[in-house]
Amino acid sequence: MSAGAPRRHFASDNWAGVHPEVLAALADANAGHDHSYGADACTARAEALLRRHLGGDVVPYLVWNGTAANVLGLASVLRPWEAVICADLAHVQVDECGAIGRFAGTTLLTVPAPHAKLTPALAATRLIRRGDVHHAQARVVSIAQPTEYGAVYRAEEVRALADWAHEHGLLLHMDGARIANAAATLGLPLRAFTFDAGVDLLSFGGTKNGLLGAEAIVYRDPALAEAAAFTRKQGMHLASKGRFVAAQFVALLEGDLWLRSAAHANAMALRLAGHVRGVRGVTITQPVEANVVFALVPPAAVAPLQAHGEFYVWNERTGEVRWMTSWDTTPDDVDAFAAAVASVVPGLA
Amino acid sequence: MSAGAPRRHFASDNWAGVHPEVLAALADANAGHDHSYGADACTARAEALLRRHLGGDVVPYLVWNGTAANVLGLASVLRPWEAVICADLAHVQVDECGAIGRFAGTTLLTVPAPHAKLTPALAATRLIRRGDVHHAQARVVSIAQPTEYGAVYRAEEVRALADWAHEHGLLLHMDGARIANAAATLGLPLRAFTFDAGVDLLSFGGTKNGLLGAEAIVYRDPALAEAAAFTRKQGMHLASKGRFVAAQFVALLEGDLWLRSAAHANAMALRLAGHVRGVRGVTITQPVEANVVFALVPPAAVAPLQAHGEFYVWNERTGEVRWMTSWDTTPDDVDAFAAAVASVVPGLA
Amino acid sequence: MSAGAPRRHFASDNWAGVHPEVLAALADANAGHDHSYGADACTARAEALLRRHLGGDVVPYLVWNGTAANVLGLASVLRPWEAVICADLAHVQVDECGAIGRFAGTTLLTVPAPHAKLTPALAATRLIRRGDVHHAQARVVSIAQPTEYGAVYRAEEVRALADWAHEHGLLLHMDGARIANAAATLGLPLRAFTFDAGVDLLSFGGTKNGLLGAEAIVYRDPALAEAAAFTRKQGMHLASKGRFVAAQFVALLEGDLWLRSAAHANAMALRLAGHVRGVRGVTITQPVEANVVFALVPPAAVAPLQAHGEFYVWNERTGEVRWMTSWDTTPDDVDAFAAAVASVVPGLA
Amino acid sequence: MSAGAPRRHFASDNWAGVHPEVLAALADANAGHDHSYGADACTARAEALLRRHLGGDVVPYLVWNGTAANVLGLASVLRPWEAVICADLAHVQVDECGAIGRFAGTTLLTVPAPHAKLTPALAATRLIRRGDVHHAQARVVSIAQPTEYGAVYRAEEVRALADWAHEHGLLLHMDGARIANAAATLGLPLRAFTFDAGVDLLSFGGTKNGLLGAEAIVYRDPALAEAAAFTRKQGMHLASKGRFVAAQFVALLEGDLWLRSAAHANAMALRLAGHVRGVRGVTITQPVEANVVFALVPPAAVAPLQAHGEFYVWNERTGEVRWMTSWDTTPDDVDAFAAAVASVVPGLA
Repeated sequence: MSAGAPRRHFASDNWAGVHPEVLAALADANAGHDHSYGADACTARAEALLRRHLGGDVVPYLVWNGTAANVLGLASVLRPWEAVICADLAHVQVDECGAIGRFAGTTLLTVPAPHAKLTPALAATRLIRRGDVHHAQARVVSIAQPTEYGAVYRAEEVRALADWAHEHGLLLHMDGARIANAAATLGLPLRAFTFDAGVDLLSFGGTKNGLLGAEAIVYRDPALAEAAAFTRKQGMHLASKGRFVAAQFVALLEGDLWLRSAAHANAMALRLAGHVRGVRGVTITQPVEANVVFALVPPAAVAPLQAHGEFYVWNERTGEVRWMTSWDTTPDDVDAFAAAVASVVPGLA
Repeated sequence: MSAGAPRRHFASDNWAGVHPEVLAALADANAGHDHSYGADACTARAEALLRRHLGGDVVPYLVWNGTAANVLGLASVLRPWEAVICADLAHVQVDECGAIGRFAGTTLLTVPAPHAKLTPALAATRLIRRGDVHHAQARVVSIAQPTEYGAVYRAEEVRALADWAHEHGLLLHMDGARIANAAATLGLPLRAFTFDAGVDLLSFGGTKNGLLGAEAIVYRDPALAEAAAFTRKQGMHLASKGRFVAAQFVALLEGDLWLRSAAHANAMALRLAGHVRGVRGVTITQPVEANVVFALVPPAAVAPLQAHGEFYVWNERTGEVRWMTSWDTTPDDVDAFAAAVASVVPGLA
Repeated sequence: MSAGAPRRHFASDNWAGVHPEVLAALADANAGHDHSYGADACTARAEALLRRHLGGDVVPYLVWNGTAANVLGLASVLRPWEAVICADLAHVQVDECGAIGRFAGTTLLTVPAPHAKLTPALAATRLIRRGDVHHAQARVVSIAQPTEYGAVYRAEEVRALADWAHEHGLLLHMDGARIANAAATLGLPLRAFTFDAGVDLLSFGGTKNGLLGAEAIVYRDPALAEAAAFTRKQGMHLASKGRFVAAQFVALLEGDLWLRSAAHANAMALRLAGHVRGVRGVTITQPVEANVVFALVPPAAVAPLQAHGEFYVWNERTGEVRWMTSWDTTPDDVDAFAAAVASVVPGLA
Repeated sequence: MSAGAPRRHFASDNWAGVHPEVLAALADANAGHDHSYGADACTARAEALLRRHLGGDVVPYLVWNGTAANVLGLASVLRPWEAVICADLAHVQVDECGAIGRFAGTTLLTVPAPHAKLTPALAATRLIRRGDVHHAQARVVSIAQPTEYGAVYRAEEVRALADWAHEHGLLLHMDGARIANAAATLGLPLRAFTFDAGVDLLSFGGTKNGLLGAEAIVYRDPALAEAAAFTRKQGMHLASKGRFVAAQFVALLEGDLWLRSAAHANAMALRLAGHVRGVRGVTITQPVEANVVFALVPPAAVAPLQAHGEFYVWNERTGEVRWMTSWDTTPDDVDAFAAAVASVVPGLA
């Protein structure tokens, strides 16, 4: 990287830093002693904010990262012979190194799904051999909102999945690692497309939206959360100085930081998509509904483009690339990168 | 708690906040984008600092908390039928909710040990039935430095355990959740009583010494660390924005913050012990070699004393209490609390 | 069932009893005391027989059932973040209730495969993201011989898979629950299409071929078997009176019982296929290469046919049924059942 | 061993063979086809017999060995953060290679106990920190009947433990690997000191009492057995030809074979104890209440005595030996061995 001003890339919202308001909240939380392991005032405040946004009966448990939110949340509602129906490209299947299997013994029943987006019909293909002791028993349907390909479920799509799941005695889990981006796209309160739409268990993401490292497992109600406390402790995600995890959520949720940051990141992705859509040799491959653009570009274009901003080649077989924006991406960042695309790609197409 | 100035207690160094220099380091690390998942410049710097303090061949892996450092470190060097010899009051046995069993299937072979301090002779009582397929096979000896009762192993005591362990084909693990406190007491460089004394695997603590939430698993050499990366990822402790875990270690280890803070906390414990040692009705029960005083007081004294600073009753059967100091405990805090002890206890003894 | 003579069905070779020669061998093994836990003379004899058939360097471990042979064999060569590439209808994926996940944390990477038969090209689609800590790492390719659909791999097909696997640092596992049926079809010694063709790890089946309950995990060589003994004990499959598991293998392998029984069962399947192939309304759907016939019949035919011999509807969506023969199926059994098919089906087609 | 008549030893009841009536029962069960995986008529008969002996509401699940009975039984009633209180010499702690930890993540809370026999007072020392998320939560008290040292709990001792356990929200598990020997000693029906005395979960042993390899997990009632079927399948102990496991229990329990064999073995132990008690240099160390004698003999006596019948040195530190009888031990075997003791030991004492 150049020695000049701080650089921003299009690799991941995980490459971005921490929003200044979040750092300030850490400093605010740092006065004197407080109870450890989540029995502090700041944690109580964060939990109240999560309930305000998600529903008065929900029960939140804070953890450090998204893998833990998914794995420990699912582990706490599953018995070892119970299985999760999910898209074949679900994060829990392809990006968590089999953590769910190691920690909980869980079987994943995967379904190929366009844009990594499930429907009741797709999920139903995996709902087989119920009660048969030889087959792991489906118990949870897990969806990502937005999906790993940036597609956003409409509230009624979530509701349809929840209704189908409940009808068959299943729970609906939502991996909301970028849930704020979905909310910004939908223009809905967080609860409208989660618990009000029938979600039972939610991984509520913060890190990708400007936090330092904080996520929440949120349960529909106390009964479902019965195993949560011991599961989190055994899962090594009970923070001793819990107030500093909680303070991040306070900064995010007390005002509109969560929405401001996500809406901005989404706008940057749309701006980028708008710039490159007409460029010869660029094909946008997935819906642009969150803070990410997936596109096919000529393989030879990858290296020269990386010089203008790093990004991931998402699928080495097809050459599909992923360009992701974040809370701190600027319009200038986007315009410069899009200009590079327009300059580099057509000559190689 | 009173509404006045921030209060400090004697409950735990986990109740203390974050040292201001650590918060400042987080802000310093927060410029632009950087690679995620530990591939960032700050992580490289933290690792270099750990190698500077612990030895050029050691291999560090950062995690968020001490339970993860112990569990994932041990899990990465054990096969499921291998066992850990430890004191019966070892943190991994009594304070981690069986996480090691759940994550790694490991059996713990516990030994009653005075001050929770192992010796080769005590460990040898658990080294039985080697090669017998019916019995979990001892593979690691685990000690805490300082112990859960605040006792510090001299370098030659560590060396004796390491020699004994290696002679029998075992590894020596040190739970160094408060390793800086031990270093301050011993007046030795960190490596002198760890890797230079034969330790193979170290949980290097930071949180209790003024960090927000950062610990390191440190391996003797790359061969021993072979399973570390995948184990940490499966163990849900690979931070996406890893630079903010690393920055805490940079703040701690680049200068002498680690030693300053620990020496201060130790001094406060000695000050407290000095004040209360002569008080009628108070019996100090464990060596005061770190930042903690264990004492027997009349049960009726507990409630009135809590009003002057909270603390834990450590053993409900014996009435032993634990008074712990931290980087931010002031001499005034100690003097005021000791005065309360002197005022309350003798009348109840 | 009728109160008359013992009935035989077409449900499974697991419905058949024990070959009389096997019962006789149990009685032979039953004299006086012998060492327990596999240190007996009979176990040594069974192991020698397995080496005679499979190769002088192989290392066998006896267990009671096929799920244990698969799960414990695989578990003993895998680390928890390592994965198995297998067909999406592999027994270990769909018929073992996720046991491999619970016992070993293993991720299965499944591939849709015609007749449940893998090829290097199919397996290669799952060999991705090697070395990427976020993704479970493929380490074993697992095939069933014959497959769950009765297809038999030719020796050169096994060799091609082994070569491909080894070239990529993978091991080849063969689930040989019905390995004798494959040998009878191929007309080859057992070693010719297993260890001589590059197999590293074999589940050697006995129960479906007339034993009471005995299978073997067979390793290519002692180095690969390093974790076998402790894994089997932890896996609860070390028999105290091991001689009675071993005696079954002695009966099976000392003479040609293994081949006689399997060849007979195969012949019965071919006889059945021959009879029904021309029947209107019956479509044979899979190769008839072992002791099983898969066919599509009109759904309405299932109930009336069950009265003539029970069998499984294999796929409720397609109506595919499975008719399986065993060591004790008689030509009369087959002819009578085929006559029922010929009588019942055409009228419903 | 000599080339003459079959030899019997004093090593273990696992060294003995199968009772002829059991072999006969296997042959009886071997007619025609029957449903697999426990849906056969013989399994139904075995289950009915277990209910007749143990109580009409109990729910039995058959498995092959004692480790599976203990591990799968316990696993099916525990969540991963729940713990088992047991004697420090309990089989599940020292003789099952940590299988319970690997399969279920369970923590064992062990108590030193004379003759490996628990009391409510001893168990109570491990019932600490209830509800504390940092500590594995005691959920089961596990006792062996008879204990690993041959001591037998009286019915009222079992009742006292059950009452204490239930009062504290715990379950009582009994490892009855040699339960028939306890029944013979107590002169009580099996139910009198198990379910009628408050036991919740029982490992019912058969193998050591003349079976080939068959044990049962027995649950107090269907509610407690809710997880049994899937746990057994995942635990790799669902036999495909289940009727041959069941037939062994039919032979054992339909008449009085269970009691005859156990009473005989017990009588042989008492006969041996009677012979050696007066011998100079022999000290009997444990109650002789089942089919076993524990004694201290001079270390130099071990080798010469082994020539007259093999046995185990139980404790290498103290030199304690274990002499165990079985269903097939004859008075002549005992007398000859006792004569050897009387001839060898005094000269070495």
